[in-house]
Parts: sequence; C-alpha cells; structure tokens
Amino acid sequence: MKFGGTSMAGIERIRVVAARVKREADAGNEVLVVVSAMAGETDRLVQLCREASALADPQEYDVVVASGEQVTAGLLAMTLQNMGAKARSFMGWQLMRASGVHGNARVEKVEGALLDEALNEGTVAVIPGFQGVSEDGRVATLGRGGSDTSAVAIAAGVKADRCDIYTDVDGVYTTDPRIVPQARKLTKITFEEMLELAGVGAKVLQVRSVGLAMRENLPLRVLTAFDDLPGTEIVPELGENDMERNAIAGIAADRNEGRITLTGIADRPGMVAAVMQPLADAGLSVDMIVHAATEGQNASDLTFTVPEAMMAQAAAVLNARKGDIGFSEIHTDDAVAKVSIVGVGIRSNPELAAKMFATLATSGINLLAVSASEIKVSVLVKEDEMELAVRVLHTAFGLDAPRGEAA
Amino acid sequence: MKFGGTSMAGIERIRVVAARVKREADAGNEVLVVVSAMAGETDRLVQLCREASALADPQEYDVVVASGEQVTAGLLAMTLQNMGAKARSFMGWQLMRASGVHGNARVEKVEGALLDEALNEGTVAVIPGFQGVSEDGRVATLGRGGSDTSAVAIAAGVKADRCDIYTDVDGVYTTDPRIVPQARKLTKITFEEMLELAGVGAKVLQVRSVGLAMRENLPLRVLTAFDDLPGTEIVPELGENDMERNAIAGIAADRNEGRITLTGIADRPGMVAAVMQPLADAGLSVDMIVHAATEGQNASDLTFTVPEAMMAQAAAVLNARKGDIGFSEIHTDDAVAKVSIVGVGIRSNPELAAKMFATLATSGINLLAVSASEIKVSVLVKEDEMELAVRVLHTAFGLDAPRGEAA
Repeated sequence: MKFGGTSMAGIERIRVVAARVKREADAGNEVLVVVSAMAGETDRLVQLCREASALADPQEYDVVVASGEQVTAGLLAMTLQNMGAKARSFMGWQLMRASGVHGNARVEKVEGALLDEALNEGTVAVIPGFQGVSEDGRVATLGRGGSDTSAVAIAAGVKADRCDIYTDVDGVYTTDPRIVPQARKLTKITFEEMLELAGVGAKVLQVRSVGLAMRENLPLRVLTAFDDLPGTEIVPELGENDMERNAIAGIAADRNEGRITLTGIADRPGMVAAVMQPLADAGLSVDMIVHAATEGQNASDLTFTVPEAMMAQAAAVLNARKGDIGFSEIHTDDAVAKVSIVGVGIRSNPELAAKMFATLATSGINLLAVSASEIKVSVLVKEDEMELAVRVLHTAFGLDAPRGEAA
Repeated sequence: MKFGGTSMAGIERIRVVAARVKREADAGNEVLVVVSAMAGETDRLVQLCREASALADPQEYDVVVASGEQVTAGLLAMTLQNMGAKARSFMGWQLMRASGVHGNARVEKVEGALLDEALNEGTVAVIPGFQGVSEDGRVATLGRGGSDTSAVAIAAGVKADRCDIYTDVDGVYTTDPRIVPQARKLTKITFEEMLELAGVGAKVLQVRSVGLAMRENLPLRVLTAFDDLPGTEIVPELGENDMERNAIAGIAADRNEGRITLTGIADRPGMVAAVMQPLADAGLSVDMIVHAATEGQNASDLTFTVPEAMMAQAAAVLNARKGDIGFSEIHTDDAVAKVSIVGVGIRSNPELAAKMFATLATSGINLLAVSASEIKVSVLVKEDEMELAVRVLHTAFGLDAPRGEAA
C-alpha cells in the first residue's frame, strides 16, 4: 500500500490511513506500506535548500529532503501500534539500494529478506518512499514523485501479489474530467495504455513506476484513501471478461506541444537525419514527425513537434545549421495541442484510427500532423480546437458516462 | 565545533555559523561540526509523536525526532559549499554506534576512520547531533540535549585537540546572573567543578557530555556563535598560570530540594540503612543526610533531602514502614534550598568551608544541613534565604565583577 502526501498530511489523516492498513492486515494479508512526506513538507525542504544554496549539492539536497518521509514513516508505525497492530518502520538506507544521479536516483535492489522477516512475524512494514542508499553509502532520493516507484520496487522485491497506490484521485479516468464532465473512471487498464495516458498528460502515477510494474508483471491499483471506492486496476493485459470494455481506454490531450516547420528542404537521402541530429545533440526530444515528399518536386516541407518550452531553442539550433541542412524558412507555432486515442484494441482494429479521423473531420477539426504507435493514434490540432476534439472523440468511442454517473 | 538549535534557527543564522566554521578551516584547522535541529523543530516533532500515540514506541520516536538534525546538517554542508569551503554531511547511522535504551541511548563507538578520510582531504565534516545507530541497526537518539554528548564523543573519536560548544549563553558564570547581577564569566573551570555546578543548577552543558570529556581528557570551550567573545574553557585541571583564579569557581543554588526529618528514631546499628533502603528500593535518591546522635539519649532525629517532586512519595514510603524502622514522627518541608560553593581549592584549603559558615552566620542565615565533597561544600537553608546566601557568598569569595563589568 502506498499513500501520497495528501493522505499523510497531519495526524488525523494518518489515523485514517492506519485504520485502512490495519483492516488489510486484520484480513490476513501481509502488508508493506510506503509513505510520502506530509503534503507541503517536501516543498518546504526544497525551499530551504534553495535559500541555503542556489546550486545545492545533490548529495546534501538528498539528506535534507529525504527527512520528510522519515517523519511520516515513524508516525504511521507508532499510530498502527497505538491501534494494536504490530508495525515497525524501515529506513531507505536499511533496505533500498539506489544508483545513478543523486536527486534522481534509480532503484537498484530491495533487501527483501529484511522485509520478509518482519512480514513472517505478522509485522506491518512501514517504509519512507522516494529514497534509498547510494553506492557511496549516502542518502539518495529518486526524484519528485519517486514514492510511487519506491512502492512498486518494494512490492516487486518481496514478490507481492499487488501494489495499491492511494492517491488524491480515486482512479484513472477516460479523459480529463475538466474537459469532459462525462469522463468515466476505468475499472481496468493495461500497463501499456497507462504509460501512453500518463506520458501524454494523465498525472495519476509517476511514469517510471508504471514502467517498472510492467517489467515486474506486478498488478497495480489506483484508489483513494478517503473512500471505499474500488479504484482502477492496472494489469499486464485485459482478460476474457474484460472484452466488454471499450477498445479505447481513454483520450489524452496535451497542450504542451510546439510545432516547427522547415520549408523548401531539399529531398535527399539522410535529410531527416540531418535535421534531427543537431536537435538530439542539444538534448531536444522530437515527438511527431511529418514529411511527405511531393511527387516530381525536389523540395518539400518537414514538420515536427517538440515540447513547447524547448521550441525556441530548437529553432535556434536549426537556424545555426541552416546552411548545412539546406532549407528556406523556419516556422514555429506554439498554439497547437496533441490529442490521442489510447487502447490495446488499436493493435487489432485499424478501423479505430479511421473512425478517429472521420469524427474529427465531421467536426471540422483540421489535422496538422498525425502519428501512430501500436496502441495509440495521435493528431496535432490547433490549441483552440483541442477541447472540442477530446469531447467529440470521447463521445464517438462510447466513453461518456451514462447520465447521472458523471465524475 | 558544536552549534545549538538557536544558532541553526533558519538559513540566515546557518550562514553566520558557516562563516565561523569556514574561518576555522581557513586558519588551517581540521574541522568537524555537530549540529542541533533548528530551535523549536524537535519540540514540533515530539508533539507529532505525542499526537500519534500517547505511549510512542521509542524506536519510532527516534526515527521521527532524529530528522531535525538531518535537515540542519545537510543545509549547513551546502551553505559551506556555497561559500567555497569543502564540506559534506555524515548521518548518525553512518558513523555513530549507540547502545542502550532507544530515546536515551549511549554513544558506544565513533567510526573515526570515515571522518579522518574526509579531514585528510580538507573537507569539513558536518554531523547531525543527538543520534546514532543502535545495535539492531536502527536510528537511536541520545536523549534531549544529546548533541553536546555527540560532539564530545566525535571529538574524542578523532582525537581532536578541542571541542567548542557554541550555545546561546556566552560562557559559564560564577553564579546565576539573575540572582547576582555582578556574576562574572569564568575564563577557565575544571571538569570536576563544571560537573558540580551543572549538577546543582547551571544549565549550560549536558552533564553527560562533561563527564565524557573528563574521561577522554578532551578540553572543551563554551562560547556564543553570535559574538567574538572568548567564552569559558573547561579543562582537566588548572595550570600554574591559573592560580590567580579564585579558589572557588562559583556558587550554585538549587530550590528543587525537599527536606524530610524523622524524630524519635531509635539509636541502633544499621538505623540509617533501615531508612535509606526502602527509599532506594522505590528509586528515590537521597542527597544530604544529617544524623547527630545526642550523647546519653537513646533516640535522636535523622534529616535528609530528596528532590522536591519526590518528597511526598518518600514520606509515604517511610510511613508505610514506620513500625519496622521505628520513629515517632515524620516532618516534611519543601521551602528549603541548597547553596554550594564549588572549587578545586576546597580540596587543599579547609579554611574555605569555615569561611562559608562564618559568612552565612554573619548574615543571620540558619543552616538546616551541611554536606561536603572534595570540591564542594553545600548547605541547606530556608528557601527565602537562598538568594541572600548566594549574594553574600559571591561577595565574600571575591567573585563579584568589578563595577562596570557585570554580566
């Protein structure tokens, strides 16, 4: 069980969490709990580091910010004891080996034996999220939101049956309910779908934690600590009985796109690479790429997208290489957005992409670019048409909640 | 160098501390720094523990309260780096083995090699006070005020030349300046004298830390972080040049005494033991004992003192054994106080005790009991005569500051 900062914000809420944990333990389950710092605490500690030193040493930063989860782990363990449950806390340095960069480390190994020992005695293990011990024996944190990843790594380390992530939303929705009030909570979603939805905007779980759960084949659940709603299961694949679920899991939208178009670019082998290489060298990641050579012409346009915040830098990089690359003009546009349908059904059903394009065309929405992967089809649209696009697709793919069941 | 919570309360003060540490390092010294939590932070964490569980598990309590020093250690290390000094933090679990009761552990061993390595590289080592790692591999704290003890243990562990304790008073005074405005800051005091002064009321350093420094023969200094005043040196013994110092280091006063008198007690061998044993069995510590048998009488009075808070309990214990012990009446009095002269000179000069009694007699102060050790003579007086007693003794032993140099 993993509880986020909102669930740990103050002793009253910690008591609610403890009652929920105890219920699982009393039901005969072996329970490990991973906790975040109290809501706001990590921000407070980060701010102290900034005041102390604009360029804080990541190793010292880790020492400071890791303290928030240490506090909540101790408090939850003693609250559980106070309720009559056997419980103890473990510190990150006692059981979680991490590697890589301080402040953004990766989980390397979980000392499962230490945890198994506690579980075998019927003790609930409470573990601070977001931290471990680095190769040099120092406190290492996993980067913001890393408590989700801690929870998945620990669950995998003890070969848990399941990892339940308690957060301040009650599950994964078919799309952003602020755009579509009829958005519906999904009962089940696959890892792949979740990764595509998370990667393009659904901020329920840290992407890294979903990828890790997928590699470890560890089922997740996302649910809220403040209610007894069932939440959303995240599973390796949909079962026979899940086939009634829509082929499309959800609609993702992302305003954070910038479009760059190079005009009058010479048609020659390696031309796309000549554009992409300098961007890669500058650490700029390119998303959608559209290049349609026009028959019988020896020059054409190349359009691609980058994160909006990097658009100006990308244009500068390319302008500096204008002579080498060979193009006439560069156009940039940040008033664009990406809208995607995501679902494992796309793999086996090409009709779904066609239905997407037809639906958007019917609504008069112009497609600036298109890209597709195994389980996702994305289109680039004008930013002011994004919400309309999400709404019509949500309806067309049968995702709207029945009247009265809206989020 | 050890800095208390007032010195670490906020980034501005941490910068003042860092500048002082850097000055020592720049002067060519190898420097280790032990820090307390920010003033108020440990109280906040203790309060959270109390709210979570009235009887908090000491092991979990330690996990929670130890976090305050972790934060200040990281912040001071990065502030030092920001000022251009080489610095890094070490956690208690990395280098300080502790044993005994969680929440009140003893320092067992300091991993000096790890620290020597840093010092040899010219790195300032910053260490959270008040904590170590227990035999079971968990966070263990040393009890409130334990950062002084951490500092002394670490200084001894690396065979430091000196341990400087920066606190919110600027040194050790001849007596409580609230009673005697002419109290003077001592330049030097011996460990023994400091222990006697601390034990009877001068709350400058944790008593345990002074005892440890004495065993390790490690000179201490007490001084303030907010000024460049010289502070007080605490040394194994006074040197040739210190002989000008008064034979008496200071006058201690303690209102926290309760007097118990048993009347009509039978004069027989083992009578004092018969009174003391039940008190010891109840965990009650007795301080001054006065028993003067009167020639030719077969019954007499026995008077002793206990801490005021335990007086009622002590009387109840004795009343329950009245028949076994054999006494007529029991009288208690909490309106008493203990006044002591403390100084290594007492050992070689019996005139000092005589001078004390004469001075008090001249002022009309009645002595309710007297006790003496090698370097201390204590008298029990009525509580409302305590301040007068301190003042006349302070003057008589030449401790008053010259006019214009008062504290």
